[in-house]
Amino acid sequence: MRATLIHGPRDIRVEDCPYPQLLADTDALVRVTAACVCGSDLWPYRGVTETTEPRRIGHEFIGVIEAVGSRVTSLAVGDFVVAPWANSCGSCPPCRNGVQVACEHRATWGGTDEHGLPVDGGQGEAVRVPNAEGTLVPVPGVSDPDEKLSKSLLALSDVMGTGHHAALGARVAPGRTVVVVGDGAVGLCGVLAAKRLGASRIIAMARYEDRAALARGFGATDVVAERGAEAAEKVRGLLGGVLADSVLECVGTAEAMDQALACTRPGGALGFVGVPHGQDGLPMGVLFSKNISVAGGAASTRAYLPELLEDVLAGSINPGLVFDSVMGLEQAPEAYAAMDERRSIKVMLVP
Amino acid sequence: MRATLIHGPRDIRVEDCPYPQLLADTDALVRVTAACVCGSDLWPYRGVTETTEPRRIGHEFIGVIEAVGSRVTSLAVGDFVVAPWANSCGSCPPCRNGVQVACEHRATWGGTDEHGLPVDGGQGEAVRVPNAEGTLVPVPGVSDPDEKLSKSLLALSDVMGTGHHAALGARVAPGRTVVVVGDGAVGLCGVLAAKRLGASRIIAMARYEDRAALARGFGATDVVAERGAEAAEKVRGLLGGVLADSVLECVGTAEAMDQALACTRPGGALGFVGVPHGQDGLPMGVLFSKNISVAGGAASTRAYLPELLEDVLAGSINPGLVFDSVMGLEQAPEAYAAMDERRSIKVMLVP
Repeated sequence: MRATLIHGPRDIRVEDCPYPQLLADTDALVRVTAACVCGSDLWPYRGVTETTEPRRIGHEFIGVIEAVGSRVTSLAVGDFVVAPWANSCGSCPPCRNGVQVACEHRATWGGTDEHGLPVDGGQGEAVRVPNAEGTLVPVPGVSDPDEKLSKSLLALSDVMGTGHHAALGARVAPGRTVVVVGDGAVGLCGVLAAKRLGASRIIAMARYEDRAALARGFGATDVVAERGAEAAEKVRGLLGGVLADSVLECVGTAEAMDQALACTRPGGALGFVGVPHGQDGLPMGVLFSKNISVAGGAASTRAYLPELLEDVLAGSINPGLVFDSVMGLEQAPEAYAAMDERRSIKVMLVP
Repeated sequence: MRATLIHGPRDIRVEDCPYPQLLADTDALVRVTAACVCGSDLWPYRGVTETTEPRRIGHEFIGVIEAVGSRVTSLAVGDFVVAPWANSCGSCPPCRNGVQVACEHRATWGGTDEHGLPVDGGQGEAVRVPNAEGTLVPVPGVSDPDEKLSKSLLALSDVMGTGHHAALGARVAPGRTVVVVGDGAVGLCGVLAAKRLGASRIIAMARYEDRAALARGFGATDVVAERGAEAAEKVRGLLGGVLADSVLECVGTAEAMDQALACTRPGGALGFVGVPHGQDGLPMGVLFSKNISVAGGAASTRAYLPELLEDVLAGSINPGLVFDSVMGLEQAPEAYAAMDERRSIKVMLVP
């Protein structure tokens, strides 16, 4: 089969790889109908994190179950499933606590499982899924989704659940004022999540007109293009002299975190989901004196999938709009380049 | 009148000071019946924070109103009041949000008010209280509390409300498992707060037998004397192989914060109230991968006073037990030394 590998900075290749087989009785084999490129895939792509040897890449995919191991009973061949970006067993203490990202038996897409056996990346024609029952979420009544539905289902694998995680970390609730730092797919989904949770005012920080328009479509009441201290002052002006109750940090850089902190009112809450890069640490003095709470981290999208899936199937949210481009799997190198150069918000790859 | 001044490291003196007068129509004048020494007073006492010139000190006191300004209507001469450690106006946006520590018109005990006028420290015979209505909490039905009640009322000025703040930051709730780092008065009150909020298991970290005994009396189910990684392993063992749901950091040092983080389970919550000293910043990578939420900071004890006062008056909590020593105001230098050398948990000073 064909699948992507990263060889080094700006070197993504689509190559021939062995078609996966079941290796454990808790595995499932999924034929991928759509995958995508994540903002976090751009860190090794840009060389910010090192790639020491060629490796499979991609951790968001949807598809059809082709085979299941003998101990898999809640999933069946033919089921259409969403794979969360983080594999999880579903039964260890962290999984039971709804923190599947800390699963004690977690396998890594494009890496290995807990037994050291290779696991396929998501950007390919098929994937062996360890811990299948704990990981995969079947989509009831759907066997062959159209492109629009595929996009929204694929968004549930990571970006929509991650935006929701940021909103929960920021304690978004009816009547709260919200700022979203980051206009990538996660930030935009953060806007949608804040709207879904009843925020009264949602200020999206965006500089590109297409992203600003999508943010407005997702529920942003205001868009701010300024950065740093200027952005915070703009927020204060928009909110009648006070800063925001809830701030979502969806980038991961020190600048974004500083901006997020500067926009949060005393006693406010900051939800962070950007993978930290170049951050020295959260400034304790600011947190202490301003009483800012901080919550978030890697999102257990598996935990949120059932409720978000229900809303997607009901048509009440359409997170798939973050996919402004669809390409064939063979075009993966171009998909990375388009996202890196911000020509595309997020690209869906179809094997 | 007599009041304490700090002149430099380990140099506390009781001196003659002018008896305060009303300076604004929103002031009240309080005759202090009891005051105390705070753990945070020990930072300048130890020279960790610099004292550039002699200054009044102390920020916890209770007493009787002797006079009120013309715009003070909700308080009257003769009222017995608790003064929270932080002065607050009660009507600015942070005050309305329950974050009185960020009051936009806050005066500082032993410092100045927003007009630059001097404000007395709490360790003295009387205090001019700016923003009297926003700050002081009258104690209904009490005009001359005995020593036992005085201790508990005085604890509401700071340590009990601060322990409660840590518990809320750590999301303590019925059924949650709790670790408390810090066996000072705040940590001990954190144990009591966790018990009051329904925690199922409370592990106090204490090395001194008197403090361990008090922690047990306040509701600790277990006491751990180990520190660092050993402490975390002890917690894991006590909790059946998992770390704690809620951890209260009540010290403020880098070591204490590291220990608190090490004791928190993935997805758990850390409440911090120790004034940060020597901390470089919270490690973002740990927070991200473990999904640990962090909340706390300087406690708005004014916000918690009504509900905690009700419990004190009903006799359901007795936070005054943290005062294991009572001295006259003239003995303030000895009170500081006793707390610095950990011979006393907390000293009540009676003018």
